[in-house]
Amino acid sequence: MSVLIDGLQYANWSEKIFRQMRAGGVDAVHVTITYHETFRETVLQIERWNRWFEQYPDLIFQGRTAADVTRAQETGRTAIFFGAQNPSCMEDDIGLIEILHTLGLRFMQLTYNNQSLLATGCYEDDDTGLTRMGREVVTEMNRVGLVVDMSHSGERSTLEAIEHSTRPIAITHANPARWHPALRNKSDTVLKALGETGGMLGFSVYPHHLKGGSACNLQDFCDMVARTADLMGSGHVGIGTDLCQDHPDSIVEWMRTGRWTKRIDYGEGSAAAPGFPEMPGWFADNRDFGTIRAGLCAAGMSDAEAGAVMGGNWLRFFAKSFGAAQGSDDTVARAAE
Amino acid sequence: MSVLIDGLQYANWSEKIFRQMRAGGVDAVHVTITYHETFRETVLQIERWNRWFEQYPDLIFQGRTAADVTRAQETGRTAIFFGAQNPSCMEDDIGLIEILHTLGLRFMQLTYNNQSLLATGCYEDDDTGLTRMGREVVTEMNRVGLVVDMSHSGERSTLEAIEHSTRPIAITHANPARWHPALRNKSDTVLKALGETGGMLGFSVYPHHLKGGSACNLQDFCDMVARTADLMGSGHVGIGTDLCQDHPDSIVEWMRTGRWTKRIDYGEGSAAAPGFPEMPGWFADNRDFGTIRAGLCAAGMSDAEAGAVMGGNWLRFFAKSFGAAQGSDDTVARAAE
Repeated sequence: MSVLIDGLQYANWSEKIFRQMRAGGVDAVHVTITYHETFRETVLQIERWNRWFEQYPDLIFQGRTAADVTRAQETGRTAIFFGAQNPSCMEDDIGLIEILHTLGLRFMQLTYNNQSLLATGCYEDDDTGLTRMGREVVTEMNRVGLVVDMSHSGERSTLEAIEHSTRPIAITHANPARWHPALRNKSDTVLKALGETGGMLGFSVYPHHLKGGSACNLQDFCDMVARTADLMGSGHVGIGTDLCQDHPDSIVEWMRTGRWTKRIDYGEGSAAAPGFPEMPGWFADNRDFGTIRAGLCAAGMSDAEAGAVMGGNWLRFFAKSFGAAQGSDDTVARAAE
Repeated sequence: MSVLIDGLQYANWSEKIFRQMRAGGVDAVHVTITYHETFRETVLQIERWNRWFEQYPDLIFQGRTAADVTRAQETGRTAIFFGAQNPSCMEDDIGLIEILHTLGLRFMQLTYNNQSLLATGCYEDDDTGLTRMGREVVTEMNRVGLVVDMSHSGERSTLEAIEHSTRPIAITHANPARWHPALRNKSDTVLKALGETGGMLGFSVYPHHLKGGSACNLQDFCDMVARTADLMGSGHVGIGTDLCQDHPDSIVEWMRTGRWTKRIDYGEGSAAAPGFPEMPGWFADNRDFGTIRAGLCAAGMSDAEAGAVMGGNWLRFFAKSFGAAQGSDDTVARAAE
């Protein structure tokens, strides 16, 4: 049975969206629960999700392991896996890594766009790579089974994370810079190193990451996916739509500025277009994954290859990533089971 | 195979004490991790425990379910179950109940000695029973599988908790007031209601709860256990030593005064004896449970009855208490598995 997994979404969650996930046959989604929030604020977000899990048990449940994706398929629901787009949630306390993992966090970006305590974001002028604490934290993330996500990090930081991490890392939502040279997209050097170490790239359909932006052509996107699969290895690519559905523009402002500036920072936007960009016509919400899949086949992928991109590769990655490192004490191993 | 469970300890934990647990054949301990700490401070205590679990995997691991007690027996280790002696850890946020349960909390007192947001402690002049929030929180604790512990609560609050709770509750560490009329000990009315609803009493060996204090006679203690088993039903009693080992006296001051007063409150102590009392000669640490067991047999209990008191009853209680309530959504159920 083919599996459908989205490697990143950040929506204004609602019953409507959960029903769209079901209508689209989405088995699992990695959802962003926190950007610049402190640990306590992140826990408040988990509390919100707990309410949704209690309220909509027929639509969604919390995913913790790859087996939960299968369980989602078997019970006709969507498994929700938590992730953080910035390490603010762990504050300056390495002990919070295991705490957050126990609470279900499965992905954490070492940076958003700025320098963090751990590494350098892709908008900084100078990328100094992993910090002293960054190396310690990657080791701890490896131990407990929390995936290092470098979607928003700079080139050197990303390469150093790939090298320092003893387990494959992910870039959950980005595209190749060679196709569309945005600060957020990734060089062939990064993509090759990612694929060679067993990592995963999730292709973004967020307009700022697309050639032509909101007007990007589906076939152009799918041809890019096929070429990138050739570059990285077809087992190392998936989807990470970066779907930011139903949010007011105040949210993209929070994502970009958090509490680090009193001024406006437009990030990937501009003064002329400060809000969320319009999604491409061929991907508006969770019901449109079939369109991408058809596009991949039209780009020359076999049904099996397209299935791997649409979820099979993420599922294999989940299976090797979310449990404790082998040789760790079995308490952690068991918590991750 | 007979099982040995202590229903409450709060020690200055160390490798020495973990080794004494092993030497004493202790399969599981409910440990206090927090008194007046906020949520974030409580998480820091869990982080400390995570370090110990990582450091001493051959001696201890975190217990989450009754099956972990069996696993402890099979692997020659001690399963550590977390508990809170005050609801400060949940602050004023009912959403933290499920968060704390996910982090492994399995017991929470609705009060320490004072009025809390939830109920009335046994040192207040007037006991007004469960508060509005108290009733909501008990319902939520019932849902997720967090045991209501009324060891330090007043009579009316305790009776209302027993009545309002849809699942059996516990008094993890106290003795009958009829045997030793301390504020912290419990009336026959409470003990009978506790037993009739499937709840558990853990007998304390903390000197302030003992007839004769530190000089209390072992046989006197064991005779009291046997009589209380007759009163409550022999399936509803266990041990909850309240062992406070190796702490400096500054800790008992924190337990008693937290941040609620700037003055000294002696609690069960006095100006003449403000510190931790000396333990009775027959119970100094985790290696002395065999002495109590022998005393129970000398008090006329059969080997099977003594075994039930020393752990069998707690094990049965753990099995029905730590999972989600039947009919709850399966996310919670699964997290508790």
